[in-house]
Amino acid sequence: MGVSPTVTAGVPARPASERRDGAMQAGDIAVSLPTVTSADPVAKAVRMMAVGRLPGLIVVDADSRPTAVLPGSQVLRLAIPASFQEDPMLARTVDEARADSFWRELGGLSVGDCLPRQPLRPATVSADATLLEIAAVMARLRSPLVAVVGPDGVLTGTITLDRLLTSLAVTGPGEPPPG
Amino acid sequence: MGVSPTVTAGVPARPASERRDGAMQAGDIAVSLPTVTSADPVAKAVRMMAVGRLPGLIVVDADSRPTAVLPGSQVLRLAIPASFQEDPMLARTVDEARADSFWRELGGLSVGDCLPRQPLRPATVSADATLLEIAAVMARLRSPLVAVVGPDGVLTGTITLDRLLTSLAVTGPGEPPPG
Repeated sequence: MGVSPTVTAGVPARPASERRDGAMQAGDIAVSLPTVTSADPVAKAVRMMAVGRLPGLIVVDADSRPTAVLPGSQVLRLAIPASFQEDPMLARTVDEARADSFWRELGGLSVGDCLPRQPLRPATVSADATLLEIAAVMARLRSPLVAVVGPDGVLTGTITLDRLLTSLAVTGPGEPPPG
Repeated sequence: MGVSPTVTAGVPARPASERRDGAMQAGDIAVSLPTVTSADPVAKAVRMMAVGRLPGLIVVDADSRPTAVLPGSQVLRLAIPASFQEDPMLARTVDEARADSFWRELGGLSVGDCLPRQPLRPATVSADATLLEIAAVMARLRSPLVAVVGPDGVLTGTITLDRLLTSLAVTGPGEPPPG
């Protein structure tokens, strides 16, 4: 009950009595994307993001609750040896062969090993969040993806920026004329 | 000379005397992507990003110098009326019809009108930056794209996170075995 490691795309709609008509909500546009746990190797996380062409990854705990929502640049960050992360000059001095393969130095380091020590608040919304709320969370937390969670905090789906823009129909027939 | 508004993918290699052999450099993997200027309407910028499925956009000045490198979430931010950007509770109170079409309220606002007042340092690298340097800049500035600039500061190409990951061959045969 609620501890399934799988992510389901279908998000339960909130009760009809609470639901306002006509507008899209997070639960309507969420999709199922692969997730990682803190125990997964960083190399697996980076590969998963690359293969799936994902804009980022959600880290979930054993109960499928998101503990981090990482933009792609921050998944990449996990793969950069700590000494190079904050010192651009140091990165510049590295032998170029190593500069192509730095991510191989990770060995068996896990996502949990490489996450920032001060955990950021994960970018989450509830299934009844409006498109504006989703956009505001993405903008404020600088995240191209948000986790949709149920009342119990369990992940029920993911919304990517691409998906949000499609839902907003920014390219649709009703768009304002190009300026 | 150097004031062309077009973006060229081909980045001049640095002189052979300076070039270390065998490793990839920013100039080798940069591609040409559409850019915007401060005068372009925000609606155009958001549409351009959506249509091109771009991870963000580079804002250039009249001399093709990058003035901002915006992750997708920050291009989206341009389209969110200011009052909703920092107050999630306010976004929650908005009528849902409006919550689907907030971005239409922008009217003729330009990218320059909506950029943060404190300009961020744009995420740029030189054509001879190594893959590690590019990764470090993306990670530190939380940007899924970086601008490649010449010695004169003129944009010569763009590197996306996708492109960097492909170049790093994180999914290639030489990868470490899944943990």
